[in-house]
Amino acid sequence: MINTPYLLFLGDAPDPLAAKVAQGIRDWRPEFALGQFRMEGCRADMGLPDMTLTEAYRAGCRTLVIGVANRGGVISQAWKRILIEALEAGMDIASGLHNLLRDEPELVAKAEICGRQLHDVRIPSVKYPIANGEKRGGKRCLAVGTDCSVGKMYTALCLEREMRERGMKASFRATGQTGILITGDGVPLDAVIADFMAGSIEYLTPPNDPDHWDLIEGQGSLFHISYSGVTMALIHGGAPDALILAHEPTRPHMRGLPGYKLPSLEQLRDTALNLARVANPDCQVVGISVNTQNMDQAEALAYLAKLEADMGLPATDPYRFGAGKMVDALAAI
Amino acid sequence: MINTPYLLFLGDAPDPLAAKVAQGIRDWRPEFALGQFRMEGCRADMGLPDMTLTEAYRAGCRTLVIGVANRGGVISQAWKRILIEALEAGMDIASGLHNLLRDEPELVAKAEICGRQLHDVRIPSVKYPIANGEKRGGKRCLAVGTDCSVGKMYTALCLEREMRERGMKASFRATGQTGILITGDGVPLDAVIADFMAGSIEYLTPPNDPDHWDLIEGQGSLFHISYSGVTMALIHGGAPDALILAHEPTRPHMRGLPGYKLPSLEQLRDTALNLARVANPDCQVVGISVNTQNMDQAEALAYLAKLEADMGLPATDPYRFGAGKMVDALAAI
Repeated sequence: MINTPYLLFLGDAPDPLAAKVAQGIRDWRPEFALGQFRMEGCRADMGLPDMTLTEAYRAGCRTLVIGVANRGGVISQAWKRILIEALEAGMDIASGLHNLLRDEPELVAKAEICGRQLHDVRIPSVKYPIANGEKRGGKRCLAVGTDCSVGKMYTALCLEREMRERGMKASFRATGQTGILITGDGVPLDAVIADFMAGSIEYLTPPNDPDHWDLIEGQGSLFHISYSGVTMALIHGGAPDALILAHEPTRPHMRGLPGYKLPSLEQLRDTALNLARVANPDCQVVGISVNTQNMDQAEALAYLAKLEADMGLPATDPYRFGAGKMVDALAAI
Repeated sequence: MINTPYLLFLGDAPDPLAAKVAQGIRDWRPEFALGQFRMEGCRADMGLPDMTLTEAYRAGCRTLVIGVANRGGVISQAWKRILIEALEAGMDIASGLHNLLRDEPELVAKAEICGRQLHDVRIPSVKYPIANGEKRGGKRCLAVGTDCSVGKMYTALCLEREMRERGMKASFRATGQTGILITGDGVPLDAVIADFMAGSIEYLTPPNDPDHWDLIEGQGSLFHISYSGVTMALIHGGAPDALILAHEPTRPHMRGLPGYKLPSLEQLRDTALNLARVANPDCQVVGISVNTQNMDQAEALAYLAKLEADMGLPATDPYRFGAGKMVDALAAI
């Protein structure tokens, strides 16, 4: 569990896209984002107050979150100097970088001296149990995709926001590095050891109030041969009451697999529901979430209308057009 | 890769069942099993020559394989003394125990001095790639089970033996600790990190001659919620041309999950084939392997005959009645 609130470290981001972790926190947990720290030449801006490390600590920041990808996969000397000062100023550091903070002896030594924590969210910090398959109280929703990277995390975050605005009990449950940094907690599922994958998801989504919804961040796809095992573990560990089908209609082939076509939404529906009912016989498919970022508005709306007619399910792009329809469907379960 | 042949260490096995790894090697790789080493009070016997450590080395043994479970999950002082002598005698040590050889400082130090290897086969020793899904030459067969521990490893080993007796090209591909110790190589799939599971199976079953069969050891079950992700990765990483359905008909519920019933063989067939065709559109279900150890002979034969009639597939207990029917079906692909 990462201490909040955060100072968002934007470093020397060459462009706004490099700072997508910071952007995610800014968009989805604005209450955690007290300030930003930019180095010379930084081309990203979250519109937050620029703070020195000392100012950030005084303002209440308890963790510096590395909100930007590093160049060349190396933690540079320039970065390291600032990270060390952050520890001295009283903040922990959280990172989703491939190179781990814990592999930097200077940071480790300084953190020890200052009594501060280094959070490498790529690496599990918990010894997860093996899944026991016991029925838990509370409701769970999982987005499953025709492919990887089709908007499953944004779908879950949109649902959480809409539910909370309606006064419903809802928790986004992060299963990837960005989601963990956004919310300060979660399971880095792609780094969990095979035998404990489903158990880690049971751990992430414990028994809860009957009217509480866990909105579990999806990963991979049952139809993506590199990562389908991860998706399978999410379906059986999460034991969802509701599935949402997630899709990006303009993709020519499965991500990173030129020889593999995307499945149809009907194939995804039938395959995922069949498997989900092993863990939860009452599971239903409640809607379709379409990432329409590559379509203009008229095209997107026409596509969604046709999908609703063809599949008999509410269909929306929850980030562009709101998640209301889907929350209506979930609230009716 | 573990150096062969082996001296089988039976330790102080309290009963023959405790030595099931040794038994597996004795049954399936008799050419690797040159001798056995028994301590006082050992109640297991592989019918092999009892050898001292020096005799074993002189006879050609290059690895002492721990063929027995340890009591209380601890490597005892009595064991440790013998393991150290084995290193001094010139042999490596291979173990599938939960407690690792590498966590015993005395063994590590001695191995270093003697230039010997400690193989903990529970832990992957290779950095596996992410699966790329590319079509590989050669044929692959995978057994998928209605549950865990229904005889998938023995099925693959029986098929390998029958194929080799017919002069066909065939390789058992181990994916679990026992299988790895039996053959000296393989992937400990349940200990692989989630993102690399399917890639580890591609690595294990590389391109081969068009008429070569990989007989991949199955793991878990698509219907066992604790381990289904592992099974899914095997199906997509292995990209099998042929599936065999594996079943144990007397089991009251899924192993370790009292609330979960076993699926029917029809459900298993349809679910597994649907998923396998994502990776290999030509995949077929070719037969049914039944573990009939809890049935008498008449009962077993009647059950198999009914299954063949109902499912239209060859059905046998390959360990009890031979794998001929299944190899006929595979050879016809």
